[in-house]
Amino acid sequence: MQQADIIINNGTVLTMDKKNTVIKNGLVCVKGDTISRMGSGDNVPIEAEKIIDAHGGLILPGLINGHTHAAMSLFRGLADDLPLMEWLNNYIFPAESRIDADFVFTGTLLACAEMIMSGTTTFCDMYLFEKEAASAARQAKMRCLVGEVLYDFPSPNYGPVEKGLEYTESLIKKWQDDPLVSVAVEPHSLFTCSPDLLISANELALSYKVPLIIHVAETLNEVADVKEKHGKPPVEYLHSLGLLGPHLIADHCVHVNEQDISKMAKYGTKVIHNPESNMKLASGIAPVTELLARGVTVGLGTDGCASNNNLDIFTEMDMAAKLQKIQTMDPTVLDAATVLRMATIEGAKALGMEDITGSLETGKKADIIIVDVDKPHLTPMYNPYSHIVYAARGNDVSHSIINGQLVMEDRKLLTLDIEEIMERAKEKAIKVREWVF
Amino acid sequence: MQQADIIINNGTVLTMDKKNTVIKNGLVCVKGDTISRMGSGDNVPIEAEKIIDAHGGLILPGLINGHTHAAMSLFRGLADDLPLMEWLNNYIFPAESRIDADFVFTGTLLACAEMIMSGTTTFCDMYLFEKEAASAARQAKMRCLVGEVLYDFPSPNYGPVEKGLEYTESLIKKWQDDPLVSVAVEPHSLFTCSPDLLISANELALSYKVPLIIHVAETLNEVADVKEKHGKPPVEYLHSLGLLGPHLIADHCVHVNEQDISKMAKYGTKVIHNPESNMKLASGIAPVTELLARGVTVGLGTDGCASNNNLDIFTEMDMAAKLQKIQTMDPTVLDAATVLRMATIEGAKALGMEDITGSLETGKKADIIIVDVDKPHLTPMYNPYSHIVYAARGNDVSHSIINGQLVMEDRKLLTLDIEEIMERAKEKAIKVREWVF
Repeated sequence: MQQADIIINNGTVLTMDKKNTVIKNGLVCVKGDTISRMGSGDNVPIEAEKIIDAHGGLILPGLINGHTHAAMSLFRGLADDLPLMEWLNNYIFPAESRIDADFVFTGTLLACAEMIMSGTTTFCDMYLFEKEAASAARQAKMRCLVGEVLYDFPSPNYGPVEKGLEYTESLIKKWQDDPLVSVAVEPHSLFTCSPDLLISANELALSYKVPLIIHVAETLNEVADVKEKHGKPPVEYLHSLGLLGPHLIADHCVHVNEQDISKMAKYGTKVIHNPESNMKLASGIAPVTELLARGVTVGLGTDGCASNNNLDIFTEMDMAAKLQKIQTMDPTVLDAATVLRMATIEGAKALGMEDITGSLETGKKADIIIVDVDKPHLTPMYNPYSHIVYAARGNDVSHSIINGQLVMEDRKLLTLDIEEIMERAKEKAIKVREWVF
Repeated sequence: MQQADIIINNGTVLTMDKKNTVIKNGLVCVKGDTISRMGSGDNVPIEAEKIIDAHGGLILPGLINGHTHAAMSLFRGLADDLPLMEWLNNYIFPAESRIDADFVFTGTLLACAEMIMSGTTTFCDMYLFEKEAASAARQAKMRCLVGEVLYDFPSPNYGPVEKGLEYTESLIKKWQDDPLVSVAVEPHSLFTCSPDLLISANELALSYKVPLIIHVAETLNEVADVKEKHGKPPVEYLHSLGLLGPHLIADHCVHVNEQDISKMAKYGTKVIHNPESNMKLASGIAPVTELLARGVTVGLGTDGCASNNNLDIFTEMDMAAKLQKIQTMDPTVLDAATVLRMATIEGAKALGMEDITGSLETGKKADIIIVDVDKPHLTPMYNPYSHIVYAARGNDVSHSIINGQLVMEDRKLLTLDIEEIMERAKEKAIKVREWVF
């Protein structure tokens, strides 16, 4: 008799492998941190300590949030429906200038709770005090790629910019053998970082073989600004600095043209699409259909809670699919399976984690969620992809396993004390109100 | 000591009255079917049979789904991401030609379960076999405005079109004194109904003082078709037939221009906006910001489950707000409070029910929901409107009261047997698969 630690059975498995293989009445076995076996049928000669009955639900890879600022969970709803500069200058920047390590730790814990409870198992973070963000993710037992935001002006965390590169390097070293936490180099944007900083950041990323992550072409103002200062639009400017490459993850890419897309495709640069944030801030609609047609890897992200205002990849999938249809006036683009790939295996590719996560295949790490479909809004079920993208919501996720460890069971979080985290979040909010109002 | 049947306390009341009054630490008393008192504070000298503690959550009017085809819940996910005509001709029309009374009854029960569980207390329906839709709503104890869809070709329900008007008239008479069910006259569209049918339908609506409901300017094809056949675009054509008026509810209005909007404003015609369906079918973006600026009453609808694919007004609010921001490239349009008004009091106005429902005010019928905010994704709370529109999801609704009756308590439906309904829905789905695949 074979042994496993966990068996999930009695569900439809959406593997999200290369062929989008679907296994009806499927099962997934987990041994240690790894998917040890997959198959179908009821009578499987395997013993396991823990058997999880999916009750006819959907078993799929954990979702990947490719771009967020997790601790901004504590700013959710602080200010909305405002012109960008008013929102930033009167609310977000004043609040961010006052935050500290404990604020980021608490906010990231809260974000991890929300993410696990809505099916995300891996997230990519860019914020301040990322040492604490990493610790919070580690406590939640979430997989993550984190990086300290770098820019020309002094940071409330590390001080002058030179220290930012040192801080990043120490983070990389600290976490380099961790099973869950990875670190990236993350200059904020082309309009907040000097060419010198961008080049140094790229060198640091290349020397440690970690991703370089930056906001690119998010707004028309940014494009105009970069053109004015550097004589070329964002992607060309990135190219001229030698930053384009397969290690580069470009967040947003709302305002990129055909030439830009060709360049990104040629250099293997990855894109993270954040439709809800781009809509809410009225930034524009990224040309996702064209990016995919040209072979660019595109993952999905929520961006931070201040501009979304949630970390739910389910609503992000729904929005992404519908937004491209309306942009192209073609209902066939970004079909449900394609969108779910963006939220799973394509997101993993974007973060350089495709050998670890993003699909359910024997030998990969066990990052698995179960979606409970025994509910009126998910009954009957004709097409599981359509259900996931257009009908399910984050809180339809019943179970989550990350790196082989059960972190949520029947919607109960096993790694975090939600009540305590929410209490701490409310205390932080009292301070935020004092800072801003 | 005053008496009440139900008291809801310990929550923030979003009244959605004319001033958007918010009552902190508020309470709402219900006596019979009516809101008997509202106020704030802990020590209220009122006795009640049932006291519902909102636990610091949000107490607001039940949401209004201004346009749906409820029984299409049984077609959710049957076919997606297809060109409109392929979707209609190969899937929806063949399936609809086979449905019967029991199909509509079951599908509407399923839809009512989903709607109540996502905060909707009133819906406006257009479909076949509406006698059964009304009965299902009555069983669910939901408020509704229903109407049999009328068109030039024979109906699987009533047969030839003349019988459709008779059927509608008998429905109006049957339900005219009902506390929950109202009936409208509902010709399908300008391209499926002859001028004679449209005029007869309007006469019937006017003679019984009930709303006239029709799809208008949903797609560019429709606009071209109406122009070609009748020499004028949809709203002008409606005007020429004498159909514009305060009793007319025009669903969609995606492709209307300034002149159309002026005419609709002048005649007091109401609009129901269905952003998710319009996006998913790639129909276009309705000019909601302009409609509101010109004083047109605009409610929100989900449309049917085959083109959405859910009946959740929370995601519809989120989508509506973000879609207008991206269309106008202005983040200030359709702010959260405005969108929540569209889903409550403006929706009530659109359906002619503003004296009954859509806001929490003493003397109005008690249609009330509670949103549980004691969750990571709703903690902390700076702004309740922002929370409702941008962060909450349908399944954050914990309680629902319709016409003074508690229909959901701590997410348990009290008027419907969900397990039984889901079983029946699955049986219907087996038939649908036989019809279509």
